Amino acid sequence: MKNKELLLVPGPTPVIDEIYDALANETRGHTDPRFVAIYKNAIEQTKQLLQTDGEVFIVAGSGTLAMEMAIVNTIGKGERLLVISHGYFGDRFKPLAKAYGIEVDVLQAEWGKQVDPLLVEETLTQKEYKAVTITHADTSTGVLSDLDILVPLIKKTGALVILDGVVATAALDENMSKSYGGNAEYKIDIVLTGSQKAIGIPPGLAIIAFNQTALKARDALGEVAAYYCDIKNWIPIMQDPSKYFATPPVNLIYAYQKAMDIVLEEGIKQREQRHIAFGRGIRAALRTFGMKPLANEEVSAPTLSCILYPEGVDDVAFRTLLSHKGIIVAGALAHLAGKAFRIGHMGNTTAEMLEQAIRSVGEVLHELGVEVNQELALQSFKEELLLIGQTH
Amino acid sequence: MKNKELLLVPGPTPVIDEIYDALANETRGHTDPRFVAIYKNAIEQTKQLLQTDGEVFIVAGSGTLAMEMAIVNTIGKGERLLVISHGYFGDRFKPLAKAYGIEVDVLQAEWGKQVDPLLVEETLTQKEYKAVTITHADTSTGVLSDLDILVPLIKKTGALVILDGVVATAALDENMSKSYGGNAEYKIDIVLTGSQKAIGIPPGLAIIAFNQTALKARDALGEVAAYYCDIKNWIPIMQDPSKYFATPPVNLIYAYQKAMDIVLEEGIKQREQRHIAFGRGIRAALRTFGMKPLANEEVSAPTLSCILYPEGVDDVAFRTLLSHKGIIVAGALAHLAGKAFRIGHMGNTTAEMLEQAIRSVGEVLHELGVEVNQELALQSFKEELLLIGQTH
Repeated sequence: MKNKELLLVPGPTPVIDEIYDALANETRGHTDPRFVAIYKNAIEQTKQLLQTDGEVFIVAGSGTLAMEMAIVNTIGKGERLLVISHGYFGDRFKPLAKAYGIEVDVLQAEWGKQVDPLLVEETLTQKEYKAVTITHADTSTGVLSDLDILVPLIKKTGALVILDGVVATAALDENMSKSYGGNAEYKIDIVLTGSQKAIGIPPGLAIIAFNQTALKARDALGEVAAYYCDIKNWIPIMQDPSKYFATPPVNLIYAYQKAMDIVLEEGIKQREQRHIAFGRGIRAALRTFGMKPLANEEVSAPTLSCILYPEGVDDVAFRTLLSHKGIIVAGALAHLAGKAFRIGHMGNTTAEMLEQAIRSVGEVLHELGVEVNQELALQSFKEELLLIGQTH
Repeated sequence: MKNKELLLVPGPTPVIDEIYDALANETRGHTDPRFVAIYKNAIEQTKQLLQTDGEVFIVAGSGTLAMEMAIVNTIGKGERLLVISHGYFGDRFKPLAKAYGIEVDVLQAEWGKQVDPLLVEETLTQKEYKAVTITHADTSTGVLSDLDILVPLIKKTGALVILDGVVATAALDENMSKSYGGNAEYKIDIVLTGSQKAIGIPPGLAIIAFNQTALKARDALGEVAAYYCDIKNWIPIMQDPSKYFATPPVNLIYAYQKAMDIVLEEGIKQREQRHIAFGRGIRAALRTFGMKPLANEEVSAPTLSCILYPEGVDDVAFRTLLSHKGIIVAGALAHLAGKAFRIGHMGNTTAEMLEQAIRSVGEVLHELGVEVNQELALQSFKEELLLIGQTH
């Protein structure tokens, strides 16, 4: 591994040597047939990952830009958006939608919990929403959404389902051809993400998929107040990447295509199982250290965890000592700052990396005067992996 | 050199090993103090390059996104934009501005020529324009703008000067503190570019600078119909990159900062002289082959040239044979397609690379039955370099 440290923040995530090598491959012109073939492949692989017969867009940008593309291309000025938020990142849709004159309501869960589905159902009966966003897993709280409950509730109102797949896409199943709630028409309409989370390449790409229903919604809007974000400008290029709209980030697309090779080779079902095992395992291990996850296990994301400190453990001291051992984790956000840390366990992360992280966390806690049982922690991690048929 | 080919299209341009190495450095978190220092340095270096006391923005995107940031943050719905266009890329401002309900007029030059300044002056008296865009060098035609003439004409009307520095920034002087036309207030207000032209890193970054006048124009607009493109969301981050708005493309910023080291070490004055010499030299050499530049020498861009084929030379045959020798040039656009090719000579391109290109072009012409004098061509190139004090 080229990495000298373990980047276990909830994104960017560890980039492996194969991907760094692809990233630094010779830059070619964006209309060079050799690059065009790679770009085309990257688009096709993403369609395969998400099982969509719609359109996939891979452009220079960030997850925030992908959120904007979702909103701008589906919801007109004066129409309504409902945001189902399990933490900090759902809230971002609010100023974004407001900038476009969209009416927006936010259902914000208590941090660490899901929004009550009854509240979602009730809210959806009160106003007519053009679309509803679901944060698949929230980067700030580590809370996972329950798509089986939410998608049918939303789709029965006729609203579009926009799934924010940041810290989820390529780790969790986001099958856009899947029907929810026993109705063939109840499907996820849009999935969006960034490159630096569970896909595992450096940041710099906005990735978004529209199904046919979402594409029809774009058509119905006519002209939109956007240019780079307007998918109509990109559709011809995504259908034939030898065409030109705005220059694609050639080297990041090399890296992305390599990452898609890795993702599809592992397989999304297997990949989801691995992430579930990692999530359960890391939380089980940390619990033995007296470190309590913010979210209950049944609503915890497989990709990252927000972990409350035991009494007396100082956030800065803990993360600094841990970084000296080469393990980088993130602080908590907003009112949890100082009270918890966040650890990512997604993408190219391996069981070996997580075992090393557990050992190092144990050592740091010991240095800070907290009694720990390293063997028990590692055993708890391994048991969760075995329970779900993961070995390494 | 890691590159096995010479990428002499008018962007992306040759990336050198030092920059590839920076690009593939270990990805760190975007709030990691080590990355924050690099990002901060990249912003400061860009301010130094452009000599601005305003704000510089470096974000994931393309040159097109930088064009959009310029327009969205300065011109309100119903206000007017004038575009001074010397080819294909000026025209892009038209649909972009229209998407935002901006009234736009375009002064399009005959390809290969500049827009007549008298026409610019006359047009500016007919309507009140909020801003005027100038393409510093046009990627489609290789025509250079005359800022000494255009900037005073525009500024005396009170309009903002937006300089499209794609294929110019970091090769040509774009000093934002310079006064034009003997008036202390007549300055360039905005410079925008992409990463893959004269800066010489892979595509994926939108770079834009606003002076204080342009920043005031943003303030006066109040709320704008944009989110990622709204510079108000980015100002706090550009002033203190430890803050967060949308995740920066960490590895591309490593590469960009390395490129800025190289640019500032060479110095912008020296760099401009080098590019002028390269432009004159390559065109002088190609003229000896009977290949005529589209633009007259006095309006030719130092960074790229659009070269008309001699009678009987087939575009596809020429470029294919040249690519077999490892030299990649671009076809011409629009009505010139098939009649001309475009060659970039900017950024990390060296005199040795251009000599190799001249030799290879000569060989290909010879293979296609055109008589050439290689020695004369190379001598013409070297003489132009010597005239301007360039040696290697």
